[in-house]
Amino acid sequence: MLTSAARGVFPIAPTPFFDDGRIDTASIDRLTDFYLGCGSTGITVLGQLGEAPKLSHEESVAIAAQVIKRANGLPVVVGVSAPGFAPMRALARDVMDRGAAGVMIAPPNTLRTDDQIANYYRQAAETIGADVPFVIQDYPLTFSVQMTPAVIRRIVAESASCVMLKHEDWPGLEKITTLRGYERDGSMRHIAILCGNGGLFLDYEMERGADGANTGYCFPDMLCDVVRLSAAGERAAAHDLFDAHLPLLRYEQQPGVGLAVRKYVMKRRSLLASEAQRKPANPLTPTARAEVDHLLERLARHDPRARL
Amino acid sequence: MLTSAARGVFPIAPTPFFDDGRIDTASIDRLTDFYLGCGSTGITVLGQLGEAPKLSHEESVAIAAQVIKRANGLPVVVGVSAPGFAPMRALARDVMDRGAAGVMIAPPNTLRTDDQIANYYRQAAETIGADVPFVIQDYPLTFSVQMTPAVIRRIVAESASCVMLKHEDWPGLEKITTLRGYERDGSMRHIAILCGNGGLFLDYEMERGADGANTGYCFPDMLCDVVRLSAAGERAAAHDLFDAHLPLLRYEQQPGVGLAVRKYVMKRRSLLASEAQRKPANPLTPTARAEVDHLLERLARHDPRARL
Amino acid sequence: MLTSAARGVFPIAPTPFFDDGRIDTASIDRLTDFYLGCGSTGITVLGQLGEAPKLSHEESVAIAAQVIKRANGLPVVVGVSAPGFAPMRALARDVMDRGAAGVMIAPPNTLRTDDQIANYYRQAAETIGADVPFVIQDYPLTFSVQMTPAVIRRIVAESASCVMLKHEDWPGLEKITTLRGYERDGSMRHIAILCGNGGLFLDYEMERGADGANTGYCFPDMLCDVVRLSAAGERAAAHDLFDAHLPLLRYEQQPGVGLAVRKYVMKRRSLLASEAQRKPANPLTPTARAEVDHLLERLARHDPRARL
Amino acid sequence: MLTSAARGVFPIAPTPFFDDGRIDTASIDRLTDFYLGCGSTGITVLGQLGEAPKLSHEESVAIAAQVIKRANGLPVVVGVSAPGFAPMRALARDVMDRGAAGVMIAPPNTLRTDDQIANYYRQAAETIGADVPFVIQDYPLTFSVQMTPAVIRRIVAESASCVMLKHEDWPGLEKITTLRGYERDGSMRHIAILCGNGGLFLDYEMERGADGANTGYCFPDMLCDVVRLSAAGERAAAHDLFDAHLPLLRYEQQPGVGLAVRKYVMKRRSLLASEAQRKPANPLTPTARAEVDHLLERLARHDPRARL
Repeated sequence: MLTSAARGVFPIAPTPFFDDGRIDTASIDRLTDFYLGCGSTGITVLGQLGEAPKLSHEESVAIAAQVIKRANGLPVVVGVSAPGFAPMRALARDVMDRGAAGVMIAPPNTLRTDDQIANYYRQAAETIGADVPFVIQDYPLTFSVQMTPAVIRRIVAESASCVMLKHEDWPGLEKITTLRGYERDGSMRHIAILCGNGGLFLDYEMERGADGANTGYCFPDMLCDVVRLSAAGERAAAHDLFDAHLPLLRYEQQPGVGLAVRKYVMKRRSLLASEAQRKPANPLTPTARAEVDHLLERLARHDPRARL
Repeated sequence: MLTSAARGVFPIAPTPFFDDGRIDTASIDRLTDFYLGCGSTGITVLGQLGEAPKLSHEESVAIAAQVIKRANGLPVVVGVSAPGFAPMRALARDVMDRGAAGVMIAPPNTLRTDDQIANYYRQAAETIGADVPFVIQDYPLTFSVQMTPAVIRRIVAESASCVMLKHEDWPGLEKITTLRGYERDGSMRHIAILCGNGGLFLDYEMERGADGANTGYCFPDMLCDVVRLSAAGERAAAHDLFDAHLPLLRYEQQPGVGLAVRKYVMKRRSLLASEAQRKPANPLTPTARAEVDHLLERLARHDPRARL
Repeated sequence: MLTSAARGVFPIAPTPFFDDGRIDTASIDRLTDFYLGCGSTGITVLGQLGEAPKLSHEESVAIAAQVIKRANGLPVVVGVSAPGFAPMRALARDVMDRGAAGVMIAPPNTLRTDDQIANYYRQAAETIGADVPFVIQDYPLTFSVQMTPAVIRRIVAESASCVMLKHEDWPGLEKITTLRGYERDGSMRHIAILCGNGGLFLDYEMERGADGANTGYCFPDMLCDVVRLSAAGERAAAHDLFDAHLPLLRYEQQPGVGLAVRKYVMKRRSLLASEAQRKPANPLTPTARAEVDHLLERLARHDPRARL
Repeated sequence: MLTSAARGVFPIAPTPFFDDGRIDTASIDRLTDFYLGCGSTGITVLGQLGEAPKLSHEESVAIAAQVIKRANGLPVVVGVSAPGFAPMRALARDVMDRGAAGVMIAPPNTLRTDDQIANYYRQAAETIGADVPFVIQDYPLTFSVQMTPAVIRRIVAESASCVMLKHEDWPGLEKITTLRGYERDGSMRHIAILCGNGGLFLDYEMERGADGANTGYCFPDMLCDVVRLSAAGERAAAHDLFDAHLPLLRYEQQPGVGLAVRKYVMKRRSLLASEAQRKPANPLTPTARAEVDHLLERLARHDPRARL
């Protein structure tokens, strides 16, 4: 089960499809093996970029179950965000029954006030059950919901099952500092903070007190290295590696384009059989594809893993 | 099957629950019978105020199937709005298989530009299948999506299966006039326009060219009368009846409060066994309840149906 | 100076223009005299519907000064909302120097969290000076900023110069009850609550504990009567009068259309020389005009003031 | 006068203040001289990060006039965005009288539909006068207004005085390609496209057909070099220089934090006497300051201009 002691890298897994839209289970296994092999400490499936809304309930459960089984004990977190509590509860129970370590919940984009946000998470925690560990997804850029550190503290206080923050506020460095300050002054119990937002600030987020990364950048092996180097105090090496990837990472972090870049590179890395998205899809143009190739070529000068 | 010749009143049915959250199927029958008896020309289920997001897929299909069967040939429209096309398609196919006349689709609240809106409806129409008649739900107050008359015309042009507009823009009178103008100048084929927004402007919407009402006000019998009187040219009588209900209708139209008022009055009218909502619920305070009682008392001076 | 003891009706004054866009100072005087004559206890100028953003600083100050002088001691509140603190401060100081009783401040529509809202009002209060009484304008429908009762309490606690709430949340009845509850339990000092939102719920708002109205409905004399009747405990008479106006009041309350209706009726009432708005204007169509005429005709059966 | 032939780099100038909030005119001159010296082809003042809303009209005009005079013929564009057309017109006329080359107009964040956006720019163009060249600021991340390429084409068609796009949509690469395609297929006349968004994609934006940069990154000299190298076809050199700056550039691009980073670095570069912002200010924390120092140190290994 997921606990607040989680750390390291939980890659956000894309959902592999064949060109005709069927789920590509072989690629799911290949991807899971790759995550395990490169040093991931967990895996998150059916997140924002896992094309979750394009999957039926049955497909979602099947994908989660497959990854859980293949991950062989590594904790698997499942995104269960939904517009209503009925489907959220159904998915949460079904994947927990199949061995998920916890679930991730994003706020609906209609929430505005602190009270609304805190109430939502309290009700969600009740809905899925007090025995299900959950991750708060704090991504204002995508969800239009702004959570202050004080609101996060309130959610943590109100739900013992809240164990982790997927931190992707932007800007977000001071937020990590404030939350860690709450822990130090005793006003909030410790929770894991793993960073998303494409990894765009992972270099300094680690230095601010983050426990790792929880994002889907197409080189999760780089994320693992940076988190490891940073945790080991090898600051210069961590920044050097991160900076080498930053041009591509920034390119991948474009809203609405990111998934296509990610799948394209993962196909070039032979992790996915196809870069296909389910409809409605947002594929790369030939020019964008050439730009990614150019970025990979330049990256390869610094990181041999980009020699494809 | 629903066609663009639809007119009259399609009440938006609430979903009846027992106090413990179970679906109250007896009340579903009673309500359906009432709708038939008071002159409705159709019924819409699982709309915004039908608590659809709190229902599982199986429950949604069961409710639709029950109403369809009981309605005995009266067209039943089913709300299938969903954050992803997979659940939308699944629900649409399942209810059409059980005899639904068509489906209603609201836009996700992330849409902004005209292109985004038009693309969404084109993809949605493809997803549910060209043989499924659909209703556009145009409710900016709730969905934060603003559709110009030109965008609606574009959707109508691009999807032959678009047959009706649930018109609930606010303000919206000029929109009806503009759309009817498009029909007259030949730039748009005819579609049915039935008005929602709680019925707040139904009096003048009928005079602007609307074909009827598609809303859930707790006196659907009044809606039927007003639409009938208005269509028959009995203007003063239509306005007199409408105005008598306006204080209560306005009270019911409060966002977030409306459903509780509606269910409370329908319980007082013996149409529902309970006013319960599924969690997360937003019940009436005792003061609000007393205000509704007061409104009913005052209404009873003009409309005997309010003598409860 | 405006204090928390304010009550009664502060009409929101429109800004009268000639057809060519010049300010019509004769109509300003006529309107001010009318407000005084019908029992207003204050006047608010340069509010949301006073076309304030279309006025230069000099024009704004001149209009405020004219009304203040003509109002002859009746408190005049001036809207000073602005995207930056520099113009807000300049306008606040200039109108206070000319005898304004206080200012009204709406939140910029970028505010989301409780902290952001509270910080904004604390900074605004500092900017205009601790000696300037101010009114919070709480109108989420227009400003997209949602203030909980707890945030309002916080603003009141942090700024001694906050003396009044222009209450126009929707729904808002429970908010009044909650705020008055804070006063009773000693957690918030008393502030005046005058209601806006076009007056759409004034009937019950008075019964919930509001001190009066602060809105621009085209029959401010009706508002004065309803507030007086309600305060005097003449409940039935208050509701009867209010209900007679509700069809027109609801029509005027349409976003974006309201100002044109208001100016048209005020012209028909001989209060304004012209219904012109400064550009960009949103005038009534002939059909809308006929609808307003029809509403006035029907209203005249109940209220002789509508015989125009 | 600004024309559609504009190209190169128009830095967005910050407004220099002393610690006590007074405007620092000596730093304005120093900054202007620096912009001229490093190869800028124009200057934009009073943009989003110029703290324009904190300035009075008189201060705004004075700053613009000083830069115009000092720039000695280099075109100066002045941001005149305002919530109302009265102050927009006043500022536009006053700065054009003092020699500005054109003005920049951002959309108010209430605009949603294509029609609303197009109407706004048509009215704005009329308001400032057909003789005043203007720049569209297209920054959805900040203004929440999404302009499709087709809407931009419509604005260009409707207003001959629209000569430039400050392109800062995100993602935005395909937008440049689409707009240049419109020019090639003859459906839109040529306009200058200079890129903002902190410069985060300047490397590929130039390759997509942009004419240069229009942003305030703290090393405008780097922007000038990258634009020059890119225009000269020295692709590798352009990317190498850009990539070296990307870690800092990304850090500066954080919403709400960027201005403080920019002013801090410009002070370290001896371009500003103080990093002070006018209230309400958002200063750097000591930790953030140390992070910027660290970024500069690392940058200095590649670009000697960062040796401070």
